[in-house]
Amino acid sequence: MSGKFIVLTGGVGGAKLVLGLSQLVPPEQLTAIVNTGDDFEHLGLAVSPDIDTLLYTLSGKANAEQGWGRAGESWAFMAALRELGGEDWFQLGDGDLALHVLRSMRLRAGDSLSHICADFARAWEIGVAILPMSNERVATIVTTDEGDLSFQHYFVARRCEPKVRTVRFEGAASAKAAPGVVDAILDPEVEAILIAPSNPYLSVDPILAVPEIRSALQGATAPVVAVSPIVGGKAVKGPTAKLMAELGIEISPASVAAHYAGLIDGMLVDMRDGQVALGIETRSADTLMVTLEDRVRVAAEALALARDLRG
Amino acid sequence: MSGKFIVLTGGVGGAKLVLGLSQLVPPEQLTAIVNTGDDFEHLGLAVSPDIDTLLYTLSGKANAEQGWGRAGESWAFMAALRELGGEDWFQLGDGDLALHVLRSMRLRAGDSLSHICADFARAWEIGVAILPMSNERVATIVTTDEGDLSFQHYFVARRCEPKVRTVRFEGAASAKAAPGVVDAILDPEVEAILIAPSNPYLSVDPILAVPEIRSALQGATAPVVAVSPIVGGKAVKGPTAKLMAELGIEISPASVAAHYAGLIDGMLVDMRDGQVALGIETRSADTLMVTLEDRVRVAAEALALARDLRG
Repeated sequence: MSGKFIVLTGGVGGAKLVLGLSQLVPPEQLTAIVNTGDDFEHLGLAVSPDIDTLLYTLSGKANAEQGWGRAGESWAFMAALRELGGEDWFQLGDGDLALHVLRSMRLRAGDSLSHICADFARAWEIGVAILPMSNERVATIVTTDEGDLSFQHYFVARRCEPKVRTVRFEGAASAKAAPGVVDAILDPEVEAILIAPSNPYLSVDPILAVPEIRSALQGATAPVVAVSPIVGGKAVKGPTAKLMAELGIEISPASVAAHYAGLIDGMLVDMRDGQVALGIETRSADTLMVTLEDRVRVAAEALALARDLRG
Repeated sequence: MSGKFIVLTGGVGGAKLVLGLSQLVPPEQLTAIVNTGDDFEHLGLAVSPDIDTLLYTLSGKANAEQGWGRAGESWAFMAALRELGGEDWFQLGDGDLALHVLRSMRLRAGDSLSHICADFARAWEIGVAILPMSNERVATIVTTDEGDLSFQHYFVARRCEPKVRTVRFEGAASAKAAPGVVDAILDPEVEAILIAPSNPYLSVDPILAVPEIRSALQGATAPVVAVSPIVGGKAVKGPTAKLMAELGIEISPASVAAHYAGLIDGMLVDMRDGQVALGIETRSADTLMVTLEDRVRVAAEALALARDLRG
């Protein structure tokens, strides 16, 4: 493949698709635009969960069973933190801390998340361009029956238990896209723009809430293809299905397609969800990603749909 | 013992004496005033080496062989930091990081080093009051044949190899003593004020360079007793002897007594250094501190000298 490929992604599910894509497409032709709505400061450290999941996944350092963090991680910091009475609801592994400490130091010195991300990727010999959606603060806030919660408090501290009423993205409306994001989307060499099967409401929406990114997607010449996060009427992992139910949305690919209406040209739907009239081009495949082969297969199916859409 | 006891201390050697004292004196009657001239910001984290050495020593967490850091420490953070191209000349253990991360977070939030220190000591059930000499920045700067070096660059990165010309303490002249320091020294219940056998020029001088502390020592009713850092014409550990030679000072207890002239009333001298006419009261003992028994013995000898001085 000679063209370029873009993927909009959140955390674990998205990282699986990007890993699959990186086996099909030369990594230097692939750009991942990553959600930063989950980013937060914890213990004075700047944590970027979705970017880090992608860094770990693409460098072969991810803890595959756990779904987040580094393989072979140790936890001496957390043990010492607990002894000192520090907040311990968010797990920071000893090796993982290196990313947060370096990132925090550089951000405080005025460096941008884009630069830091690029340097981390270079240090770990990741060919894929990993671009944060924005270098400005965008914070995903979940309004629940317990009040407003920042994303990590909802997701980690409260384990997605509170009932969600609405989700908003503080700062998104005035945030500029990070350097390179809009150019990457509008590049005439782009053959496909994929939306990963990350949580549409929590992980993809923050990206789409950045006005320049939404406009660029609407103006892009390349087809935009979403991979449905629904598999057999359920979400594979995480709070997608629970959240959709709480928001009064039917748990189906059709609902996700409707949510992305006006932005996507096609959707890769799981074969378990049958044929669905979505008003857009669809392709049906086994979209469950357990093994690396699965990830490559799903990526290939999504690219095939984009190729069909290009005609 | 019913009175109170004060010790001015730097790093490893000083911590040994404080540990010895804490076996003789009820810990709550003991106050350690600690050098912060070595404190520095590294990787965006506030590191207080002498305070931490004392915290680790008094809580039984110190790595005795190494002389710094925690026993049983792990190093996954440093390994990951190196992968990312981070500065790795200063070792930060995984457990040790908890102190630095929490301290940095609280300092940035406007909390004082005194409060943070007290909370760490409380969390680890340390009865001794550990007071930083000042909550304001005092930085030990070593002028060498390679130019000015901050203390940690001289001591750790350059392993004390550059030849020292002068030492200065930036900020000391205008720094206030931390809350409690002056009151502790001037408390009429104090029976002895000890100067630990830390490096006089690098570890004790920064404390003495804080004007309020120097004045308080001069006005104190309790006898001030220094424990000589020289043992048999040599320094036990660290750069004391090399530094004295470079500064053109004879390596002897007499030189150290002359350095502390006007501040001390007596000096505990190692028996290997014979009888020295110092112009102050002296006591001779084996001052080498290898075992815990040694530390208790040296502390007892220093207290005995203070008792003699009180008459």
